[in-house]
Amino acid sequence: MFASIANTPEPPYWAVIFTAVREDADDGYAEMSRRMEKLAAEQPGYLGVESVRGADGTGITVSYWASEDSVRAWKANAEHRVAQRKGHEGFYKAWFTRVCKVERAYAFELGQES
Amino acid sequence: MFASIANTPEPPYWAVIFTAVREDADDGYAEMSRRMEKLAAEQPGYLGVESVRGADGTGITVSYWASEDSVRAWKANAEHRVAQRKGHEGFYKAWFTRVCKVERAYAFELGQES
Repeated sequence: MFASIANTPEPPYWAVIFTAVREDADDGYAEMSRRMEKLAAEQPGYLGVESVRGADGTGITVSYWASEDSVRAWKANAEHRVAQRKGHEGFYKAWFTRVCKVERAYAFELGQES
Repeated sequence: MFASIANTPEPPYWAVIFTAVREDADDGYAEMSRRMEKLAAEQPGYLGVESVRGADGTGITVSYWASEDSVRAWKANAEHRVAQRKGHEGFYKAWFTRVCKVERAYAFELGQES
């Protein structure tokens, strides 16, 4: 599978969809974003992440987790909580976080069928 | 809320996360993509869509639906099925579709709390 598509296991598992509109200034955002992706990948139950940002400043990041407990633990992570507070203090014009249970999944890769 | 963030109701509802890596050629993709967004919006149970494409050709589109039945009906829609077949015939290098039940949601907009 391509690096930009998470190689998740068979469902069920959990997804956190984070859709956000950035402020125009950077102010350390890129560094914090990289740090959070690295920190997330070290957490129990982490399955992968997909993240795309468009030219208009809107981004969608979906992280995948083995269980609801692992989603809750990541939300409560101390360093992640500091980053979440910064999300209220200037990084974003708006964001929406949705916590979901993945029930079914289908994949396609050119030259293969899965 | 910003136009690029779907104004969904209180959970539970359903989300379809479609992550895809495009082929380099266009071949009518943009037109089909617009048509599918318009067609989806006409379906029963449609709640909204968020869609971002990055410079590397990876895109994430999340559509939101009131019920599992409305997700199934959209997947089975005849014109959508034609578009799905084109997804196997050259529009994408790879894609991953995940059907999820949204259990919890949190939102933030600068100058408001929700």
